Amino acid sequence: MTKKSTVNNYVNCDNMSIELIPIKNIPLIEENDNLSEIIYNSLEDNDIKLQDNDVLVLAETVVSKAEGNIIKVDDVEVTEEAVEMSKLSSKDAKLCQIILDNSNDILRCQEGLIITETKHGFICANSGIDNSNCREGYVTPLPVNPDKSAQEIKGFLDEKYDCDIAVIISDTQGRAWRVGAIGVAIGVSGIHPCTDFRGCYDLYNQELQSTIEATSDELASAASLLMGQSDNGICLVLIRGYDSAFSKCSIDESSIDEIIRDKSMDAFR
Amino acid sequence: MTKKSTVNNYVNCDNMSIELIPIKNIPLIEENDNLSEIIYNSLEDNDIKLQDNDVLVLAETVVSKAEGNIIKVDDVEVTEEAVEMSKLSSKDAKLCQIILDNSNDILRCQEGLIITETKHGFICANSGIDNSNCREGYVTPLPVNPDKSAQEIKGFLDEKYDCDIAVIISDTQGRAWRVGAIGVAIGVSGIHPCTDFRGCYDLYNQELQSTIEATSDELASAASLLMGQSDNGICLVLIRGYDSAFSKCSIDESSIDEIIRDKSMDAFR
Repeated sequence: MTKKSTVNNYVNCDNMSIELIPIKNIPLIEENDNLSEIIYNSLEDNDIKLQDNDVLVLAETVVSKAEGNIIKVDDVEVTEEAVEMSKLSSKDAKLCQIILDNSNDILRCQEGLIITETKHGFICANSGIDNSNCREGYVTPLPVNPDKSAQEIKGFLDEKYDCDIAVIISDTQGRAWRVGAIGVAIGVSGIHPCTDFRGCYDLYNQELQSTIEATSDELASAASLLMGQSDNGICLVLIRGYDSAFSKCSIDESSIDEIIRDKSMDAFR
Repeated sequence: MTKKSTVNNYVNCDNMSIELIPIKNIPLIEENDNLSEIIYNSLEDNDIKLQDNDVLVLAETVVSKAEGNIIKVDDVEVTEEAVEMSKLSSKDAKLCQIILDNSNDILRCQEGLIITETKHGFICANSGIDNSNCREGYVTPLPVNPDKSAQEIKGFLDEKYDCDIAVIISDTQGRAWRVGAIGVAIGVSGIHPCTDFRGCYDLYNQELQSTIEATSDELASAASLLMGQSDNGICLVLIRGYDSAFSKCSIDESSIDEIIRDKSMDAFR
């Protein structure tokens, strides 16, 4: 792909296949586990040597667990606001308290539905609190600083394999107008969350005006196809062959903040 | 993946790699082109024989073009409502008229932004009207019946290759709270747009309560990583190795309607 094209250059594209590779046999993660080390060992077990431009997508739950970001629901003390939310939503009051504690703002609270802005600025259901793949009676909030978590893993693996990879921490989130959740990026390192195609030209040599693509979300969604949502235990996917020429960056140059729409541009809050 | 699991079966998963393969050298599509035939010829040119469970993702623009769903902007007559929308949005009045003609409802119309419900029921910017990769002065609305378009292609290719594939027609759409557009499914055949994991069990053997995954959107997003948005001319991607066991269906059993959130459940209209 080029930033400036000539007419009919569509046959000159150099796109190659992309491979999505599930990294198997990652053990159940516990608090204080060294996640980078565990990932490295699993890659070795899977006979995989990372190389430049590889993208690793890691499910946020294992990051939160390793970082000890786990809450015992019974231990939570409930405020009046949480009781009120519980009445409106028919969700457990202690869960409502955890949702509240992990939010900047409540956008909607109604029967069966709580949509919040998380501390990171993400708009999602239940502040991203997850009770799947967690011991009964416990829930995991999103990692506190997913960019930093991604940076740590990238730093460790870049050194181990003498290469330059990207790491994406992913979550599965719903959408306002479409049924079903999809994989999205909530933390990035080595790659910008969006790719800006403005200044590129289309097939008819017209300059593209406003095409920004959320490529990190698309990478997270692609990985999600292998992760599934249940007992198949795939929490890490290697994406090999993706051309990140327009979005690649150094380890701490990118931030997931780039993908969060500014409140002033939000027409649906 | 199983519908009923035992504890610690996470090492028994049978996930294999998924391959995303760009189908190159598809010519510029014109009105009345036989798209199925063109796709078949391009697959042959790329030395690809389709097989069971392959998923083809095709960009909606080429479908609209082949179906003659192209509008010459200059020919459009503008109503008062479109003039009003033009004032509010600073978008061209004729474009506003086309957006209006292709909508059921206008959700937002403000400076630089028009969000509508399309005739299909999709909530997206500008009723999905696209002026990229189209001759200057022309725009393409979304295909009129993308499920039917997908069915025709699947029917043709299933017969040619004596196999059972899925076809997804994709678009690139923005989101309310995240910057950047992503690939989404707007038409499906041979595959349900969502996969329902309710009744599955997690790693800790707890039954999943509410996990519906928009797998067709994830497939469209994965394909979008190869399509790019500019002059690279990839409009068709083959996804091989995706396990569609939970979402596979016959040629006309699925409908993209399944992914459209019912108005009664819409908290953000």
